[in-house]
Amino acid sequence: MITGIPVSEGIGIGKAVIVKKEYSIKRYSVDNTETEIERFIEAIDKAKKEISDIKKHAEQNLGSDKAMIFDAHLLILDDPEFVKMVKEKIQQGTNAEWAVDESAKFYESLLLSLDDEYMRERASDIKDVSKRLIRILSDESHSEAGLKNLAEGSIIVAEDLTPSETAQMDKTRVAGFVTQQGGKTSHTAIIARTYEIPAIVGVKGALEKIKDGDVVIVDGYQGTVLINPDKQTLEEYEKRMNEEKKKKEELKRFVATEVKTKDGKRIKVYANIALPDEAEIAIKNGAEGIGLFRTEFLFMNRSSPPSEDEQFAAYKAVLEKMEGKPVIIRTLDVGGDKNIPYLNIENELNPFLGYRAIRLCLGHRELFKTQLKALLRASVYGDLKIMFPMITTAGELKEAKSILQEAKEELKKQGIEFSEKIEIGIMIETPAAALVSDILADEVDFFSIGTNDLIQYTLAIDRTNEKVSYLYDPLNPAVLRLIKMTVENAHKKGKEVGVCGEIASDEKIVPILIGLGVDELSANPAKVLSVKKKITETDYSTEKNKVNEYLQIS
Amino acid sequence: MITGIPVSEGIGIGKAVIVKKEYSIKRYSVDNTETEIERFIEAIDKAKKEISDIKKHAEQNLGSDKAMIFDAHLLILDDPEFVKMVKEKIQQGTNAEWAVDESAKFYESLLLSLDDEYMRERASDIKDVSKRLIRILSDESHSEAGLKNLAEGSIIVAEDLTPSETAQMDKTRVAGFVTQQGGKTSHTAIIARTYEIPAIVGVKGALEKIKDGDVVIVDGYQGTVLINPDKQTLEEYEKRMNEEKKKKEELKRFVATEVKTKDGKRIKVYANIALPDEAEIAIKNGAEGIGLFRTEFLFMNRSSPPSEDEQFAAYKAVLEKMEGKPVIIRTLDVGGDKNIPYLNIENELNPFLGYRAIRLCLGHRELFKTQLKALLRASVYGDLKIMFPMITTAGELKEAKSILQEAKEELKKQGIEFSEKIEIGIMIETPAAALVSDILADEVDFFSIGTNDLIQYTLAIDRTNEKVSYLYDPLNPAVLRLIKMTVENAHKKGKEVGVCGEIASDEKIVPILIGLGVDELSANPAKVLSVKKKITETDYSTEKNKVNEYLQIS
Repeated sequence: MITGIPVSEGIGIGKAVIVKKEYSIKRYSVDNTETEIERFIEAIDKAKKEISDIKKHAEQNLGSDKAMIFDAHLLILDDPEFVKMVKEKIQQGTNAEWAVDESAKFYESLLLSLDDEYMRERASDIKDVSKRLIRILSDESHSEAGLKNLAEGSIIVAEDLTPSETAQMDKTRVAGFVTQQGGKTSHTAIIARTYEIPAIVGVKGALEKIKDGDVVIVDGYQGTVLINPDKQTLEEYEKRMNEEKKKKEELKRFVATEVKTKDGKRIKVYANIALPDEAEIAIKNGAEGIGLFRTEFLFMNRSSPPSEDEQFAAYKAVLEKMEGKPVIIRTLDVGGDKNIPYLNIENELNPFLGYRAIRLCLGHRELFKTQLKALLRASVYGDLKIMFPMITTAGELKEAKSILQEAKEELKKQGIEFSEKIEIGIMIETPAAALVSDILADEVDFFSIGTNDLIQYTLAIDRTNEKVSYLYDPLNPAVLRLIKMTVENAHKKGKEVGVCGEIASDEKIVPILIGLGVDELSANPAKVLSVKKKITETDYSTEKNKVNEYLQIS
Repeated sequence: MITGIPVSEGIGIGKAVIVKKEYSIKRYSVDNTETEIERFIEAIDKAKKEISDIKKHAEQNLGSDKAMIFDAHLLILDDPEFVKMVKEKIQQGTNAEWAVDESAKFYESLLLSLDDEYMRERASDIKDVSKRLIRILSDESHSEAGLKNLAEGSIIVAEDLTPSETAQMDKTRVAGFVTQQGGKTSHTAIIARTYEIPAIVGVKGALEKIKDGDVVIVDGYQGTVLINPDKQTLEEYEKRMNEEKKKKEELKRFVATEVKTKDGKRIKVYANIALPDEAEIAIKNGAEGIGLFRTEFLFMNRSSPPSEDEQFAAYKAVLEKMEGKPVIIRTLDVGGDKNIPYLNIENELNPFLGYRAIRLCLGHRELFKTQLKALLRASVYGDLKIMFPMITTAGELKEAKSILQEAKEELKKQGIEFSEKIEIGIMIETPAAALVSDILADEVDFFSIGTNDLIQYTLAIDRTNEKVSYLYDPLNPAVLRLIKMTVENAHKKGKEVGVCGEIASDEKIVPILIGLGVDELSANPAKVLSVKKKITETDYSTEKNKVNEYLQIS
């Protein structure tokens, strides 16, 4: 048994398919450096062609947002600094394979040294591209071929998976992922959660201990990988897996139904999504709407901001997929730790307390207005609600609304249609917003409590900092009081309150949120059905009394 | 007129005394590198002797805490890495002066590149030491001599001032400081505020534009430096300066009195201090007690933590100087941005939301208990109150109190005396603490609201980040509501509430704090008298109504 970080829940049982990352790169001296440089240039052209083909395939099968990562690969091949470095190394007399490998390692380690998880993950793009170049240069047979013809129930074991690799996989045949590298936001983790495939990343020694064809159990709850388990263990896990499947089947009765608590209080259950494709998964899992559609994916992984048309297409796609169900789209929430090169955000001492989200948007009015216009244009294709993140003062909210008004007037002048009934809401994620929610309620149609950040700021901790993460407690009475205050203030003004933080997916906390009076829960797509079930098992008035008692006494 | 950052208020008028930093360092080849290394070793010995002399002088005149900086200088001279680098450069054939200068520049730029203001300021220690070494090596006459014989009303103009330089100055003859380098926490700034000398730092081009003997006006309010002003301007500023002096004289009537609002509500006025010496300045300025004695100075600038005895001596000194007046001593508040090498604090992505203050102390129990024992031992010399910083949960507070109890029991076993009536309080500086202040009030004798941090966390901004500092607003209704909540919760349990953030020194905000029901204000020593005056001009019930109205409506 070996262990790692569980990043996608579930039990997966199957046969190991090892994705080898190691290939020997020979080093030898080159006399005719010019011919060697030509060989390198040819390899670049071939690589570009291959990537363009994969990109086309991905666009057809995964949608344009996921194909975008291949644009990043093409950009690397066009990067003059990278090409220059390789050429210089060749001019010093080394062969092209070695020069590519050395240059790629330089950029990889540069990216890995950055204090930004997102940039660190980008190191895998460089690795992906250099691996392709070296393969082409050394004329190796296509290592990706094996992934195209997976057997049913394959457990993919790899150092890390690249987008080129996952794009060519038939995900319905994958029973689990085990990778040696990666974190919660790595490509493998995201793909695994999207397709609800159990996955464990950061498993040290996986490639040493697991052999091709080994029977492997992936426990995506515990983060454990069992290799060639004995009959009894295998049967136990098969039993658990089948029970889970059965449970999942049973939960399906909630797909098409609206749910109420035992004592008849209606609670809406929405889903959080980060990519347009996930809307389908949300629907399949019974979400009554999208409680949080993050728009960051449109702005990342590129060298300039997305156009109004490109954004419009993405927002329209989600609204159409949701077929008239409410879709809350959050305006751009980047800055600080989520870096966007073309926004030139300076390094900050405390990025979580820095220039991010609505603060950044109010400082980049054109960027913000372009997003708002794209949203307005998309509004005729469904029930769009616009949500502003990270509001701290009524002044910010008024400014954001006035830019929205400008966007509307510009569209009117252009004769472009948009819905007149778009609801406007804000995230309640700073203590300030919760504390003045009575004032803010006058300005909006709804609130959505972002508990992840609200907890961090209220308790003054960065939960990604393991030295203080022990203080991260969603049930801290200060946090619960802020939620209660927000709900009461909103209800006094007749406004609804949702929760879109991680705790809305947590069955243990759902009854407490109900007790606090929340109207809507927005969960991970994979959790929507179990949240719905939990609601039907919960008694609102009992929970309300319990919470009130707890908040007074503790 | 040139401008900079005002770091110490007041108007200073006088003649410029230029402290030259530039000395020509010659570079030449050395054949006999061994003799040159000997010359370097001799210079180190001479420098050590000089520094020890200055240190003795400083100890007698400034107290042992301020003399400690010279220990840092001695440590640099003993640093094997530094000495090795110089020796290596000499072995390569360069003269000792050049080798010292190059090595010092290397360490300086290393320190300046760090994201830590404190470490950056330490670059000036290296500069100070290397300047001394080079002076000794090149046998230059003692450049510090001029500073020993200042004329009355000198305006010191320098690149930056080193502790050796300020230690030898007769501060009563200094009318102002103007430096090209430095920030709010630079050595010059601290010395200027301690001695209430107007000072402007970061004045670009000061050494070019100001000549020795020029008449200079330092406006420590505006951050402007006027050089050889015309007669009219000079007269205007002299008038202002004299008015200020007069005002200061008038304020003296409040030194010995306790103050009440116009409608008879008694408000206590304490002072915030960071060094034991400042207790005298606090008394001179009419402070009725110390509302916040920061203990960080004892732990910084050294390679191991201070002993119980050393801490005891410092705490005892302050208690004795305050002659029975209340002294609130805050336990260690470091971490994150205030780095302490021997605590091995890791770099954090968001230090303000990190492992600091009470969190760090609870993780370093022996360090914490040593401080508590030193405090307990000092308690018999005055009216000591112990205050814990950065409390977020009742659990932390209980844990801190149980360590205090352990410290008491250990002292009892050792037969060491301490007061049984020490009051215990906490800083209210996280939103969580304010939100559960009703719960926390049961566990303490008093609260002190640290508004600087409370504002930052409530509004989720780092005010040192100029991109978001516009949001830093002490009058933000969310902040005022938290203060009000804290005061009401404390009063219900019969506990007092002070404010020790910067706003307690701000005459414009003092009436609002009074309206919110605060019992005590702890101001900068230089502001105590004007705060007292402001209180006597304020009507509590009027302010209370105003604040309540504002908090409901806004």
